[in-house]
Amino acid sequence: MPNEYRLRRRVQFYETDAAGIVHFSCFYRYMEEAEHALWRAAGLSINPPNAVVGFPRVAASFDFHRPLTFEDEFDIHIRIADFGERSIRYETIITKDGDNIATGSLTIACVKKNNDATLTSTTIPADIVSRLKIFPQDTSE
Amino acid sequence: MPNEYRLRRRVQFYETDAAGIVHFSCFYRYMEEAEHALWRAAGLSINPPNAVVGFPRVAASFDFHRPLTFEDEFDIHIRIADFGERSIRYETIITKDGDNIATGSLTIACVKKNNDATLTSTTIPADIVSRLKIFPQDTSE
Amino acid sequence: MPNEYRLRRRVQFYETDAAGIVHFSCFYRYMEEAEHALWRAAGLSINPPNAVVGFPRVAASFDFHRPLTFEDEFDIHIRIADFGERSIRYETIITKDGDNIATGSLTIACVKKNNDATLTSTTIPADIVSRLKIFPQDTSE
Amino acid sequence: MPNEYRLRRRVQFYETDAAGIVHFSCFYRYMEEAEHALWRAAGLSINPPNAVVGFPRVAASFDFHRPLTFEDEFDIHIRIADFGERSIRYETIITKDGDNIATGSLTIACVKKNNDATLTSTTIPADIVSRLKIFPQDTSE
Repeated sequence: MPNEYRLRRRVQFYETDAAGIVHFSCFYRYMEEAEHALWRAAGLSINPPNAVVGFPRVAASFDFHRPLTFEDEFDIHIRIADFGERSIRYETIITKDGDNIATGSLTIACVKKNNDATLTSTTIPADIVSRLKIFPQDTSE
Repeated sequence: MPNEYRLRRRVQFYETDAAGIVHFSCFYRYMEEAEHALWRAAGLSINPPNAVVGFPRVAASFDFHRPLTFEDEFDIHIRIADFGERSIRYETIITKDGDNIATGSLTIACVKKNNDATLTSTTIPADIVSRLKIFPQDTSE
Repeated sequence: MPNEYRLRRRVQFYETDAAGIVHFSCFYRYMEEAEHALWRAAGLSINPPNAVVGFPRVAASFDFHRPLTFEDEFDIHIRIADFGERSIRYETIITKDGDNIATGSLTIACVKKNNDATLTSTTIPADIVSRLKIFPQDTSE
Repeated sequence: MPNEYRLRRRVQFYETDAAGIVHFSCFYRYMEEAEHALWRAAGLSINPPNAVVGFPRVAASFDFHRPLTFEDEFDIHIRIADFGERSIRYETIITKDGDNIATGSLTIACVKKNNDATLTSTTIPADIVSRLKIFPQDTSE
């Protein structure tokens, strides 16, 4: 993947299930872990104290090709596929030893919290845009 | 949804995150909870002891429309959208007080485990097919 | 257990691990689920919107006697063992078909949040005390 | 702690709850992550394919002193406090920037699986004993 961020990770025991493999719900957590590491690599936190805006997830999907098992080391490759004014879509590939394990997509929206606790869509702040647009290539944490 | 199975559920505290809402990864667990309850309503277990076949997840997606928060009661509506010879695709809608919270899809494949621990795609056993094809409509556990 | 609250629950697939049993960390979640259900049975929420006080966990322990597996139905019995001015200690027994599965303890403290985000120990508000002291016996949700 | 193994870890967003801090159940997962990393540092896996023996958890406890929040970096210090013939007890301290966050204990038993799926207590195999007794001091993964 061009312009990707890569996070290496090991399967933890509590992520496995009685079928002996990583429970599929954990892949969405892996994808988000890589997203947040990408933001840190860009000098940002996606949820800093006293944040003015937030980034709820509006869609997420995975196709699962091969299982992961306990203690497997794997790579989460993530890149920004669409950079909108009010939303970002990431694409993710999870690999182990060169094999494609799973392919995912994650869309987040930028919102501000109103006084009545409702959320309103808003444009992504300029400093976040400028930092994310130059995030480092092929860097592991 | 026609021919749906419905499971009522309450948000647990450990399912919320620091944004004050249910973490998006939990929705995939909710969808699977409803799937397994549907199988039980059909007189089946998706993972019985000494199972001959298994049903790994091959794809799962959600669109998130509104958040859920601690102690919310909500309904998971699930139905079989595609019943293939070797796979099943479910559609899910999660609602709270009539509001659409999230819309999801889950595809599972039928496999048998080989002696070398690899998996081979196989046809869904006839007794499972016959039981799932008549699962009750609009039933809560 | 005298004066206990009882919550019936079923093991979900995502709570199992590659040893084929419920991961031990889930028992702490079961204990908290029963605690929150006990508070609801007493007409309370442990974390209402705009809460004045909070109840962080200060200690939790379990002894594990027998495993739980996928789809097991079990009971979480919880009772208030010590009712202090600033803290509460619960005792929990988890049973399945009359067998003792695990025995636990949970201590929570009452705190108020200061303007600088630090927490200060405080006395449990009178209305919470009066409601919890008469919570129903042997009631399932 | 003398003879300890140390694992550095960062708080993930899905580990936080609506109180804005790491959910207490995650600390038991952190303790186990460090245990498994200690075994790997000793050249072992606690759950290898085709394992002859298993190590179910028989007791686990934590005292919680200070909260952890999103993206905090912290250290899990673990050491073997009691090395029995059939069980091991670990002690754990979790620290952040020198502050004591939580103090825990974990006891595991060595068992073999019988043909009828029941478990029998057994002595820890000699090669596991010899490897664990010399595990490296103060090593991070």
